[in-house]
Amino acid sequence: MSNVFVLGHQNPDTDSICSAISYAYLKNQLGMDAEPIRLGDLNNETLFALEKFSAAEPRLVKRVSEEVSQVILVDHNERQQSAEDIGDVQVIEVIDHHRIANFETTDPLYFRAEPVGCTATILLKLFKENEVEVPADMAGLMLSAILSDSLLFKSPTCTPQDVAAAKELAEIAGVDAAEYGLAMLKAGADLSNKTLEDLMSLDSKEFEAGDHRFEVAQVNAIDVNEVIGRQAELEVLMEQVIAKKELDLFTFVVTDILNNDSVAIVLGKKAGIIEGAFKASVVDNRVLLPGVVSRKKQIVPVITEALS
Amino acid sequence: MSNVFVLGHQNPDTDSICSAISYAYLKNQLGMDAEPIRLGDLNNETLFALEKFSAAEPRLVKRVSEEVSQVILVDHNERQQSAEDIGDVQVIEVIDHHRIANFETTDPLYFRAEPVGCTATILLKLFKENEVEVPADMAGLMLSAILSDSLLFKSPTCTPQDVAAAKELAEIAGVDAAEYGLAMLKAGADLSNKTLEDLMSLDSKEFEAGDHRFEVAQVNAIDVNEVIGRQAELEVLMEQVIAKKELDLFTFVVTDILNNDSVAIVLGKKAGIIEGAFKASVVDNRVLLPGVVSRKKQIVPVITEALS
Repeated sequence: MSNVFVLGHQNPDTDSICSAISYAYLKNQLGMDAEPIRLGDLNNETLFALEKFSAAEPRLVKRVSEEVSQVILVDHNERQQSAEDIGDVQVIEVIDHHRIANFETTDPLYFRAEPVGCTATILLKLFKENEVEVPADMAGLMLSAILSDSLLFKSPTCTPQDVAAAKELAEIAGVDAAEYGLAMLKAGADLSNKTLEDLMSLDSKEFEAGDHRFEVAQVNAIDVNEVIGRQAELEVLMEQVIAKKELDLFTFVVTDILNNDSVAIVLGKKAGIIEGAFKASVVDNRVLLPGVVSRKKQIVPVITEALS
Repeated sequence: MSNVFVLGHQNPDTDSICSAISYAYLKNQLGMDAEPIRLGDLNNETLFALEKFSAAEPRLVKRVSEEVSQVILVDHNERQQSAEDIGDVQVIEVIDHHRIANFETTDPLYFRAEPVGCTATILLKLFKENEVEVPADMAGLMLSAILSDSLLFKSPTCTPQDVAAAKELAEIAGVDAAEYGLAMLKAGADLSNKTLEDLMSLDSKEFEAGDHRFEVAQVNAIDVNEVIGRQAELEVLMEQVIAKKELDLFTFVVTDILNNDSVAIVLGKKAGIIEGAFKASVVDNRVLLPGVVSRKKQIVPVITEALS
């Protein structure tokens, strides 16, 4: 059994999974007995990346404190996005690229957050700082994380550092970043084998703003109407989540990865803030968000400010 | 007027001041218009260091938001230790070596915390990562910070990284670390020109644990009895602070920098936890803490756990 778990957020995306695997590899090279784990099911995009680079799926662990007393968080820091029993273990490191909130420790720790587009971009620096060579499979996984988080470098979260890191990693991995990236995103946007329940939880994150709780789910699609066409059924499921989690707002975002726009369905007693916050009309609980692809940079801060 | 302020914590110590100056220098070299500021009076130790390396005192600024909209925090992250109007500005970076608590942002930022003995040890890495040469005066200031925080490498917070950084910086600064460090600590421990009010606020920090608020003040001394001999007068002042800040516990620590022990005066309605927490007898509101020199590592976590 390992001493330390390395974990990404709930409803894991490609960055959370690939960064957990790559950082656990780095820590193992440095002499720590670390194991990457996952807190939920893998999406089709991540499965595509793991298969391409022959990486094993991390083990699914629900309650980390039953196996370890120390963990490392990658790609998140907010406790409500982490393991359900995160309060029962010691967080010894965090590597992240999100805002910092709902995070507190008793002791000093290694906390490395940078305002870049992807955790893996920071990990590449850590490999270099620790003078550990990046093997081809790990390079492929980290590249996948950057291509995913940056939507092929088109997201406003993407920085020159992400582009440079991806270029370097693509060379080590021996793949063409643009070609591989599009294939990976398309695999992720293939929603044909997904139930509506799957879509709801595929990539959904909960946030707090002032006294309000809100959740933002995001689904990438080639054909947005494939999802929006089932709005009535989606709303029933969204209302169930709102009731269960006592949310004030649930925003379900469908992002067109070819045209880089999004459509969102908004429900909850605070849904009225959306029109003013995004300066866009909500018709039939639905709002068009031209040019919006980043939950982190274009959605969460806007909702947070409107609710605070 | 500068665009960005770089600031350490209230009741600044040598690390807070010297790291603010050194990091502002680095940011200026990288093209940012940054100014180091201070939130309070300088202690004798810091004055000694600034004079030795011909550095100007940072400007005293009480309300940062009246001059800038963005700040960088060094040597702290907890909001109650920062500028009183910290909530009105954007924190764009944090470089720190303390626990993380009471810190929250709306947007991603550069947050670099490492479990080392001194902020300046991390700063030396940042100079290197950014390929900026450390001039002799900045090296001297960073060295002073490390010698101060580590009590000449004798504090349990001191890591091999701090020792290595100090060695490198001493060479650049052209001083003998041991000899200079002892002179600097002695200058700081010269309490002859200090009033009791000065002693109370020289290096005092406020913390939260569960629903409780506590403060820990620390004074370095060559002759502990010089301070403890005035316990009755000190207690009157401590009670005033307790009432004003609604503290549950105030711990006033006097550290013998030659023998590396401490004596603490404890007051407040939660003072009863001290005996159990430190496994030591409190007699006449006073407790002997053999081998205890580090507030961060040997006092705050112990009180936090006992209060939580």
